[in-house]
Amino acid sequence: MRLQTPKGFRDFLPQDALKRKFVLDKIIKVFEKFGFDPLETPTVEYEATLAGKYGEEERLIYKFETPGGDKVALKYDQTVPLARVVAQYGPNGSQILPIPFKRYQIQSAYRGENTQKGRYREFTQCDIDIVGAPGLLADAEIISCVLESMKSLSLKNAKMLVNDRSVFKDLKIEYIRAIDKLKKIGQEGVISEFIKYGADPNWAEKFISSFDNTKPVPVIITLFNYLKQSGLEEGKDFEFDPTLARGLDYYTSTIFELVSKEYEAGSLGGGGRYDELINKFVGNSIPAVGFSFGVDRIIEAMELLNLLDNISSSVQVLVTVFSKDLRSKSTETAKYLREKDLNVDLYLNLPENESDYKLDKQLKYADRKGIPFVVIIGPDEAAQNKYQLKSLKDGTQQTLSLDELVAKLSS
Amino acid sequence: MRLQTPKGFRDFLPQDALKRKFVLDKIIKVFEKFGFDPLETPTVEYEATLAGKYGEEERLIYKFETPGGDKVALKYDQTVPLARVVAQYGPNGSQILPIPFKRYQIQSAYRGENTQKGRYREFTQCDIDIVGAPGLLADAEIISCVLESMKSLSLKNAKMLVNDRSVFKDLKIEYIRAIDKLKKIGQEGVISEFIKYGADPNWAEKFISSFDNTKPVPVIITLFNYLKQSGLEEGKDFEFDPTLARGLDYYTSTIFELVSKEYEAGSLGGGGRYDELINKFVGNSIPAVGFSFGVDRIIEAMELLNLLDNISSSVQVLVTVFSKDLRSKSTETAKYLREKDLNVDLYLNLPENESDYKLDKQLKYADRKGIPFVVIIGPDEAAQNKYQLKSLKDGTQQTLSLDELVAKLSS
Repeated sequence: MRLQTPKGFRDFLPQDALKRKFVLDKIIKVFEKFGFDPLETPTVEYEATLAGKYGEEERLIYKFETPGGDKVALKYDQTVPLARVVAQYGPNGSQILPIPFKRYQIQSAYRGENTQKGRYREFTQCDIDIVGAPGLLADAEIISCVLESMKSLSLKNAKMLVNDRSVFKDLKIEYIRAIDKLKKIGQEGVISEFIKYGADPNWAEKFISSFDNTKPVPVIITLFNYLKQSGLEEGKDFEFDPTLARGLDYYTSTIFELVSKEYEAGSLGGGGRYDELINKFVGNSIPAVGFSFGVDRIIEAMELLNLLDNISSSVQVLVTVFSKDLRSKSTETAKYLREKDLNVDLYLNLPENESDYKLDKQLKYADRKGIPFVVIIGPDEAAQNKYQLKSLKDGTQQTLSLDELVAKLSS
Repeated sequence: MRLQTPKGFRDFLPQDALKRKFVLDKIIKVFEKFGFDPLETPTVEYEATLAGKYGEEERLIYKFETPGGDKVALKYDQTVPLARVVAQYGPNGSQILPIPFKRYQIQSAYRGENTQKGRYREFTQCDIDIVGAPGLLADAEIISCVLESMKSLSLKNAKMLVNDRSVFKDLKIEYIRAIDKLKKIGQEGVISEFIKYGADPNWAEKFISSFDNTKPVPVIITLFNYLKQSGLEEGKDFEFDPTLARGLDYYTSTIFELVSKEYEAGSLGGGGRYDELINKFVGNSIPAVGFSFGVDRIIEAMELLNLLDNISSSVQVLVTVFSKDLRSKSTETAKYLREKDLNVDLYLNLPENESDYKLDKQLKYADRKGIPFVVIIGPDEAAQNKYQLKSLKDGTQQTLSLDELVAKLSS
């Protein structure tokens, strides 16, 4: 019997699962405010659907054959499944999709990564995309929606770096990936990567040093104008970054990267315009722009800023059970508090062969579960129709009537 | 290029995804009211973890090898992963789990089913379980929570059938599965299945006809007493069913099945007590009781009762764009309405080489997306600071001030 979580995969025990739920619920609210609707696609795609889309990263795809002999693979991202959906149900398919198609998709992606690098083999991807809108207004909507999502999470210093990928037109993808590492490896590092991939040293040096005096191209100026119109501030909310390149090779125009000065481990997400990717599926060009949130990093950043400290259990109160005789008193109380829309746990580990239940065990349970309050109903309380409310945070105890109990817990 | 959803798998386009979200959000609220916290486990488990748990159904498990050589499998249900989690983090493991462990888990399960039977190979399982509580109060909490979930979905005629599996003690699992089909295949059908699996015809006939006068065993009487204490009504909310058997072989005591008289295609979920399953992982017995909701069937039942008719888009209004000149007027309006907490879509398919945008195309987009209202801001409206609000449901049109517009849309 193998009692392990598979290597590179994770269990999310209640506290972590609640943190993820808190973050995603907030983000979803903003997505819906901006007119995005949800899409879900299967965990697996036909291998042929994913083939030829990810360059050398394709080796990281989990592939297998079903008992029926179908060659399938676990999804690598949500973008290729989106492209398939657009091809199948869009203007060249069954035509049931509204175009522009604005969707959010929050599902797992799977990659056979080297776990020594601290990478996960299954991780949540949270994407928004707009398919079928050629103008920069769509890019502006994506950026506004992302920044609004960050505000809803109180990540107030999140900033979107923006560049135009077309300034790197005709450049090999290896050079683009090297440029993307500029802040990490410096100009010298980028130049030596260029040379490694066959560049002329003189050209490489000239190319890289040209970055210092690069001015935003007209596309960026227009986009920034839209962003300012929607109340965002240049420098604070968004910024031109001529060294931003992004590693994926399908971007065609604007590219974005979300950073926060309080979180230096990397970007909180990235995206851009990819007007030619869906082409590979439908045979004609359908413009698209999108963004993918790094959910794990956003949670990490929020933890660093103590923004998730209060999340330990959704339960607001544990109703303890004093003795077999008083059990029905406790069940009635739990029922009543639930009717008042409180999240209530009732202690349930009550062995049949005991008639007095140990209270300290029940308090320990509440504490381990992260429940802030417990209600105790002993013989005295039951006789007087009173309830003892104990706070596990500060240890204080109050004797209350039922109405007072509800009022206190609801506040 | 293979432009298909893999056979037996499904895409949930926005409208269907929203219906699922609506249903699950409601259910989760009830779970949390009853003190359940979320758990998430990976899509894959080690093959060895799943081996030997599902009898002959094991052939339906999707197995494969990772690039690193690990033998893994897609999960078949949420119960075995729960047992692994309890073993790993529970009293015999790292001891970080609170016991009783009350968790809900809403994730995909995967089975290589024959698609001709209308079965899906990936489907959402929505489970609640209580691990480490031996008494019937836990069974009562599970049943109460399930029935409350159904009420929150307006499925008012949902009823829990209850039996005690231990009355079938020592019976072969094939017999138990046959009994479980009694309502479908009749007494004669069950008897012939019994005989097929080796039963003596006389015994079989006697055994089956004994069901008519079966009285609830003491366990059921006690459980029903708890259920009545928590305000549930025998006959309406729950009912003893001596023919209920459930096909899974790990149940040890109470078994449940949720039915609704408006939905005859099958049960809406099932569960029971399985005090020995976790045993297989930890070596000593840890009692457990749980329930699994049939999410697809619940949605089907709600659709039959027209309870999901109003769910088509989370978007409340589309702000149209009249012309290039009036574009910023529309973006400002969308921004303002979003600030008022409305879900607002802004029409984005605005080709650069046109200055007047076609309104009928925009209305068609809203209609296809299922958006109930559109706002039109033409030159007249812009000049007077007015907004035309058109209902796509009844075609009515009103000219409103900005405040009136917000009030109308918020109501």
